[in-house]
Amino acid sequence: MPIFKAPVQDTLFVLNDVLGYGRYANLPGFADAGGDVLEAILEEGAKLSENVMHPLNRVGDIEGCKRAPDGSVTTPKGFREAFDQYREGGWMGLAVPEEFGGQGLPYSVHVAVGEYMSSANMALMMYPGLTQGAIAALLVHGTEEQKAKWLPKMVDGTWTGTMNLTEPHAGTDLGLLRTKAVPNGDGSYKISGQKIFISAGEHDMAENIVHLVLARIEGAPEGVKGISLFIVPKLKLDAEGKPGERNGVSCGSLEEKMGIHGNATCVMNYDEATGHLLGPENGGLKAMFTMMNEARLGVALQGLSIAEIAYQNAVSYARDRIQGRSLTGVKAPDKKADPIIVHPDIRRVLLTIRSITEAGRALILWTALQADIAHRSEDEKERQAADDNVGLMTPVLKGVLTDKGFDHAVMAQQVFGGHGYIEEHGMSQFVRDARIAMIYEGANGVQALDLVGRKLGMHGGRAVQAFFKEVGEFCEANRSDEAMAPYTKQLKKGLNDLQNATMWLLQNGMSNPDNAGAASTDYMHLFGLVAFGYMWGRMAKVAQEKLAEGKSDFHESKLVTARFFMERVMPETSARLARISSGSTTMMLMPAEAF
Amino acid sequence: MPIFKAPVQDTLFVLNDVLGYGRYANLPGFADAGGDVLEAILEEGAKLSENVMHPLNRVGDIEGCKRAPDGSVTTPKGFREAFDQYREGGWMGLAVPEEFGGQGLPYSVHVAVGEYMSSANMALMMYPGLTQGAIAALLVHGTEEQKAKWLPKMVDGTWTGTMNLTEPHAGTDLGLLRTKAVPNGDGSYKISGQKIFISAGEHDMAENIVHLVLARIEGAPEGVKGISLFIVPKLKLDAEGKPGERNGVSCGSLEEKMGIHGNATCVMNYDEATGHLLGPENGGLKAMFTMMNEARLGVALQGLSIAEIAYQNAVSYARDRIQGRSLTGVKAPDKKADPIIVHPDIRRVLLTIRSITEAGRALILWTALQADIAHRSEDEKERQAADDNVGLMTPVLKGVLTDKGFDHAVMAQQVFGGHGYIEEHGMSQFVRDARIAMIYEGANGVQALDLVGRKLGMHGGRAVQAFFKEVGEFCEANRSDEAMAPYTKQLKKGLNDLQNATMWLLQNGMSNPDNAGAASTDYMHLFGLVAFGYMWGRMAKVAQEKLAEGKSDFHESKLVTARFFMERVMPETSARLARISSGSTTMMLMPAEAF
Repeated sequence: MPIFKAPVQDTLFVLNDVLGYGRYANLPGFADAGGDVLEAILEEGAKLSENVMHPLNRVGDIEGCKRAPDGSVTTPKGFREAFDQYREGGWMGLAVPEEFGGQGLPYSVHVAVGEYMSSANMALMMYPGLTQGAIAALLVHGTEEQKAKWLPKMVDGTWTGTMNLTEPHAGTDLGLLRTKAVPNGDGSYKISGQKIFISAGEHDMAENIVHLVLARIEGAPEGVKGISLFIVPKLKLDAEGKPGERNGVSCGSLEEKMGIHGNATCVMNYDEATGHLLGPENGGLKAMFTMMNEARLGVALQGLSIAEIAYQNAVSYARDRIQGRSLTGVKAPDKKADPIIVHPDIRRVLLTIRSITEAGRALILWTALQADIAHRSEDEKERQAADDNVGLMTPVLKGVLTDKGFDHAVMAQQVFGGHGYIEEHGMSQFVRDARIAMIYEGANGVQALDLVGRKLGMHGGRAVQAFFKEVGEFCEANRSDEAMAPYTKQLKKGLNDLQNATMWLLQNGMSNPDNAGAASTDYMHLFGLVAFGYMWGRMAKVAQEKLAEGKSDFHESKLVTARFFMERVMPETSARLARISSGSTTMMLMPAEAF
Repeated sequence: MPIFKAPVQDTLFVLNDVLGYGRYANLPGFADAGGDVLEAILEEGAKLSENVMHPLNRVGDIEGCKRAPDGSVTTPKGFREAFDQYREGGWMGLAVPEEFGGQGLPYSVHVAVGEYMSSANMALMMYPGLTQGAIAALLVHGTEEQKAKWLPKMVDGTWTGTMNLTEPHAGTDLGLLRTKAVPNGDGSYKISGQKIFISAGEHDMAENIVHLVLARIEGAPEGVKGISLFIVPKLKLDAEGKPGERNGVSCGSLEEKMGIHGNATCVMNYDEATGHLLGPENGGLKAMFTMMNEARLGVALQGLSIAEIAYQNAVSYARDRIQGRSLTGVKAPDKKADPIIVHPDIRRVLLTIRSITEAGRALILWTALQADIAHRSEDEKERQAADDNVGLMTPVLKGVLTDKGFDHAVMAQQVFGGHGYIEEHGMSQFVRDARIAMIYEGANGVQALDLVGRKLGMHGGRAVQAFFKEVGEFCEANRSDEAMAPYTKQLKKGLNDLQNATMWLLQNGMSNPDNAGAASTDYMHLFGLVAFGYMWGRMAKVAQEKLAEGKSDFHESKLVTARFFMERVMPETSARLARISSGSTTMMLMPAEAF
């Protein structure tokens, strides 16, 4: 049975010490989130994750969801009750404005707690996770009437939400979708078609399910310009706004998946279901992106979450499992062998995971804080700069943290040797669950293209230039600090590689877009490395300041981990740059039939 | 349903054109294996793989093996019949000496065909695969009587074999094993203990199962110096050598695994089972290494095999799936979208897999041919040099091809997007099956230590120096060939990085073995990159010669793939070197309790 302990101290280190949470007390919602309150919220979230959600993780994997012939779906034993506790704790509305029943706390706190919960039970957390995406879309694109009608029950968790985008022939390319919307004449529409891969599409944990469905209104233009977003409830609301008559939507089947068995991944059939337009006609893509961006950060968080819990279990195993002797002489003379944590190759694995996970946590919390600033600051320039950062970092976080999350689950599994391959130990589940995060909400190749094709050039490269400037200034500011040299030297080299890669893209990606496409994945990872390196620079700086105040094992290990990152992870930047600047000529030469 | 086509043309290219198989006609068994005969054998193996084994792959995954309360195990539907065809085709004894019923053909041909079969059905092929390891141990360490008694029925496939090493507390560190052997007084022993993770430990496909079991004879020294290898048949042989009375060995349970569900992974209980010493008392480790080295190459082949079939399916999907448009303008105007193979990022993925898989195939066939030379040449110096190569390359192939095989299955799965995560398409199975190859027969970290700690320094570094010399001479010989420059330039740089890493290890690994341990995995992969690069250099050379004789799409794509490898894969060598030379100081600083 895997173990799990929410890394509250690490979160507090990032939010309070590194990001200086205290400085933002002027932002709405932040006054309540400082100091003790913050810690209390994190501790409560930790308790729920460790004691309620975590014990159900393996149950969910083994039992999975079951669909009855009538289309109803039963979730694994215990999931309903755990979701009740989540709902009753007010977690769904943590960062939702108070007028819709939320607590109005910072989004960054929501993300911080969300990490623990996804570590503990990723499949279970997808039910509220999808709801959060739907809430975000309603908040931005709903009319006042729609918000009043749908949000309160979603925010208190009585109803859940879904995102219905994919069809069998339309995944990345939503322009191909065929689901039809025919006006009823009363402002509502009849929605007909089939959607696949719908997470939490049907289940037994909520009174109603609010599907947000992309469809094409009869006569709309072809492609993405002709798609609209609709609210399609499982049960239609009666005059009093209570769920009543069954709508024409049902779960046709459940997918057999590699992992996240506890989440119901549904084929959803729409047969003249009543739907209500959300946002303008043919404006579905924009509304969908609101959900999607929220969801992408949520998925990035899943990558981080699985890496964290997999790491904890690998460490625990490496401390207990005795096998062989240290290369530099016996370390546990009282035992028949040394614990495998004495071996450098095991430490290499553990510190690789840890150094990227801690940097990833800092980066996602930094980005979430930027989102808070973008939504809550009174200063327009500050809002804009923060919004730039969120847009820039979203594809990086989604692509890199989920690629790494999976790699890290695999590396942690490897520490267990043969025992890692046996389902009983739970390491296989982490790998199988983590795998989906690289695919859904835009496969990671699509994230890379979003970064290179859209985010890089936006507003004349404003976002990326500002980020380079910030990292460059950090290196410059610490130039005379001897103690910071081990961190800033590699960071500067990494930044240099990233800037060269960016320059190469500007010079070669415009004239031949295939060069941009060929570079995209390596560029995304290069970007991630530098952003992680920047976070380690900042964490090392704070750790040194704290150590100057007195000895602390916690801060000592931050410095060791930072150094490991710079020595062992950052050197990858040069290989990434070399690949990027090799261009697309060779790969485009091969005729499709020669592959 | 996944597709599979055995890459016979690629194998022939490597064996005949690159490795110059024709030059070895003087070696025993090679006369029959040249030209048309070779092609006929490969084609027969291809047919069996494609038509018989491949269709059972998914069946095996879904059904798995079932253990009845009496300890008997049923394999998936169709496995018995497929194994009958394998047996009747004489595939088990392909490379076994004729005096034991084999065909005495080259081991390299056996490896070539083995690739197809493992691609088609890895779980099924493990039953004969383990038998082959047991045959190898009997051939080397058995007495004449033992060989006559056990081999013929194993070579014709009537009986299968297993390797029983691991115990719950003794995996990598076999010195900890507790299974006991007590002399019966008649030359036989009573074997008692529990073994775990025993592949093909019990099943319904053979008349008898010959377990080779590591155990400690009462009173033997502690550690690895006190372990011996025993032959323990499932059914004892009667006076006529026929299976009769049941021996004291049974399958206690089957493990629930992440993949290879079609193979029975057993907990084996030995309760005073009759065993016969194989090899000298307390000489079990050496005998085990005979099996192990054979098995390690077999596992390396599994990595290659899964990468190949995963690649084929990803290519097929990428050609068919239409989604989005090419970045450089519409490519399929008659369709609503372009096939995704137009996208550079998809090509990057496919060519990464392909360029490493083709180099891996060349390297494993080169190594298998070295094994043939080591066993069959009349020239002692040639035998020695070939044996050095096999010893050196075995951990590299096992570690690198299985790490890459898994990565490649994951990358191929990614090409399918969401459909890759659904079991129905079979891509998930490739990932789940490939995962075990990184773990069993010595986890890849152990392979890296074997390379750095044993193989590198053997005979004063003779093997590694010879290999560097060979690669260096190849670069030198092609220095004036303009057309070869794209390949030799990067190869030379890679070799340089590898030599620097080797020098660093010599200077720093002796004084502090933790430096060797910390470098081991990166060194193994660096070695693999250079060895692959060398194979690409040789393949490119041959392809150019063939193209000089006339146009050929086959040879053109070899050159494109070679160039891709040099541009996109080789640059990793510098990052590997940087990591290696950062040493072990940082990672050893962290106290175990601070992880």
